Amino acid sequence: MLQTYLKFAKKTAYEAGKITLKYFKGDNGANYKYDKTIVTKADTEINTLLIERVKETFPTHSVDGEEEQFGNSNLVWVCDPVDGTAMYARHIPVSVFSLALVEDGKPIVGVIYDAFTDNMYYAVKCGGAFLNGEKINVNDSPLAGMQSIANFDMWPGAEYNLYPAFGELGMKTYAVDLGSIIRSAACVANGDFVLAIYPGTKHKNCDIAAAKIIVEEAGGKVTDLFGNEQRYDGDINGAIISNGVVHEEALAILQKYITC
Amino acid sequence: MLQTYLKFAKKTAYEAGKITLKYFKGDNGANYKYDKTIVTKADTEINTLLIERVKETFPTHSVDGEEEQFGNSNLVWVCDPVDGTAMYARHIPVSVFSLALVEDGKPIVGVIYDAFTDNMYYAVKCGGAFLNGEKINVNDSPLAGMQSIANFDMWPGAEYNLYPAFGELGMKTYAVDLGSIIRSAACVANGDFVLAIYPGTKHKNCDIAAAKIIVEEAGGKVTDLFGNEQRYDGDINGAIISNGVVHEEALAILQKYITC
Repeated sequence: MLQTYLKFAKKTAYEAGKITLKYFKGDNGANYKYDKTIVTKADTEINTLLIERVKETFPTHSVDGEEEQFGNSNLVWVCDPVDGTAMYARHIPVSVFSLALVEDGKPIVGVIYDAFTDNMYYAVKCGGAFLNGEKINVNDSPLAGMQSIANFDMWPGAEYNLYPAFGELGMKTYAVDLGSIIRSAACVANGDFVLAIYPGTKHKNCDIAAAKIIVEEAGGKVTDLFGNEQRYDGDINGAIISNGVVHEEALAILQKYITC
Repeated sequence: MLQTYLKFAKKTAYEAGKITLKYFKGDNGANYKYDKTIVTKADTEINTLLIERVKETFPTHSVDGEEEQFGNSNLVWVCDPVDGTAMYARHIPVSVFSLALVEDGKPIVGVIYDAFTDNMYYAVKCGGAFLNGEKINVNDSPLAGMQSIANFDMWPGAEYNLYPAFGELGMKTYAVDLGSIIRSAACVANGDFVLAIYPGTKHKNCDIAAAKIIVEEAGGKVTDLFGNEQRYDGDINGAIISNGVVHEEALAILQKYITC
């Protein structure tokens, strides 16, 4: 059954990717939501598509899309139609589509699709993680490794202010902030980054469910900002997404500075 | 004559873009230089191409490419073959080619080419700034504007540690770090970002010359990290690249925290 779910998720991701590319170059209809986050035509059109597809294929399941939700099953399709919308709206090709099937709070299938490079990352529970059919693994580099890169997500409305912690972490490792936490999580999964830190939003933000399963199936580790496991069908407490090797060190530094 | 130089710069940029795309998907030959920065096949091949083209076309001019230099004219072609190499090496499509003609330390022609989106940004002195033939202008948003985005460049080997300053700036504006300061400067020029801050490197780093002229011809402002003008044919003291509106506020915050 997991393979059936995965097939559905990948097919939906490719459809979503076409919508992403369709609106990328021209006017993508960007406008601002009540919480100052941004939404584009692609976000809403992909969310609508997903709901239609789930209703056709798995009518008893729920959908939790960033822009629209339905149902109250323990099997929930958790989706971020365009993660990195602020970059997408500015025609910067680093956003991704993310979709996971979450059962009782735990992701059991996940896909992340980067339409710009046609890269499909995916995993099912206990089945390993893959990129376009090839098995992927996290790297084993320390924070201060010569090739180590971390992604520090940040904005004024984040749930936790991590700048002071980034100040210490940033003396150890080269950092970027691609503007898409899920794009950077994919980079952890395939060994390009050692770490990605998500400071959380003050509203609902469970849409890193696919990142959780893909990174862990690739051998990495994903916890909340305090090192705990958490559910991925509701509000989350930020996330530390790592290759495993650097997890405890990053966690210890975060604990020294973390404030709401 | 400026138009002749511009035509040459754009032609070279399109040639460089083809090389960038050629190596993007597969093995791009990434390896590490003595200073822990990265170099790929595209960097060296583009640098060699530029030197050939300048020797053919403007034999009395100099070239100052990130990977190779020649000549000692007061007219210098300053180039970063692939700005954002660490991202390019990881197949993340945010790097750009940058080329400026610098006369006595001042850029008089500049092009920035993003091969992934086929976007050519360019300017000549006193001629305005353009993107693919359309005039571009910086925006007039404040730091805390609803749509304001800043780019905070950072890494452990930077000339100045700006993390403490980013902590204060980051409470005012949404921030990213695309991993290419020149890509983010282009976003300032066309009104997508309000600000981009470059902490400088401890070795030679004059390759933001094209960003200097394009952003200023688009109505913005570019100074060193202390608010001063500087030459763009040698080592620079970092850079504040802004829409003009936020320049003084960003400068004042930087001065409170800046340390080597």
